[in-house]
Amino acid sequence: MQARDIAIQVPTVRLTDSIAHAIQVMALGRLPGLIVIDAEQRPRLVLPGTQVLRLAVPAAYQDDPALTRAVDEAHADVFWHELRDRTVGDCLGTHTPRPVVAKETATLLELATLMARQRSPLVAVVDGAGLLAGAITLDRMWSALALTRPDD
Amino acid sequence: MQARDIAIQVPTVRLTDSIAHAIQVMALGRLPGLIVIDAEQRPRLVLPGTQVLRLAVPAAYQDDPALTRAVDEAHADVFWHELRDRTVGDCLGTHTPRPVVAKETATLLELATLMARQRSPLVAVVDGAGLLAGAITLDRMWSALALTRPDD
Repeated sequence: MQARDIAIQVPTVRLTDSIAHAIQVMALGRLPGLIVIDAEQRPRLVLPGTQVLRLAVPAAYQDDPALTRAVDEAHADVFWHELRDRTVGDCLGTHTPRPVVAKETATLLELATLMARQRSPLVAVVDGAGLLAGAITLDRMWSALALTRPDD
Repeated sequence: MQARDIAIQVPTVRLTDSIAHAIQVMALGRLPGLIVIDAEQRPRLVLPGTQVLRLAVPAAYQDDPALTRAVDEAHADVFWHELRDRTVGDCLGTHTPRPVVAKETATLLELATLMARQRSPLVAVVDGAGLLAGAITLDRMWSALALTRPDD
């Protein structure tokens, strides 16, 4: 099996989309992460779901988790409203890792090793020109691995 | 909202369970990770899904991803059979991080900060005695955050 055999189509976002939109796309699609593409459909970033969540947590709390315990429950419910209208690009900061990307010919072993090493439950699959051709989720990997199970 | 308001019950595994069983529990439950408990129902580990996948990838490939490209497709399909009968405990190695755990009274902000920092789409919720009381998945967090959305 190759990446092209198990890739699926997933909704994507752009750097100019709002955090609120990005969260909505993830939640509605029950996606384990988000692919951020540029205007040419090239993957710019592959964000695991936890890192999409990170975009919504104001930086002060990320730097000092003890602060979070000082916030009362009513305010702790609405922390993310502070950032919801900001864009994905605004919240990323200067350090953006290389996107988690595989070729259409990547094998299950290559995909599994990539997901495990990059701690990313989502991989963007690109064609020969580097354009987004599909995505592989961790759920999709489990299904593919189950199909390779020998009769026992 | 507190952790106890949004926690759900999820299937758990033990260190003595096989890798094949752990993968099956994740895949069937469509879980984003696994909670490994001890005999007293204390969370010993909270493994993100990508790290459950890592258990199934032989160490040689993890250490040298270039090796994965040298494996032909037929063998790359069945890489995980080599380890499937080994136990979760066997494959963990000596370094096991502290489990990603929250109290039942943790707020949404505390939970979000914890998930983002630990890069864990799953949090084990424990009672006063440290025993597993439930779990919070990233999907569950999105739902909780959506409920706190102001009318706009």
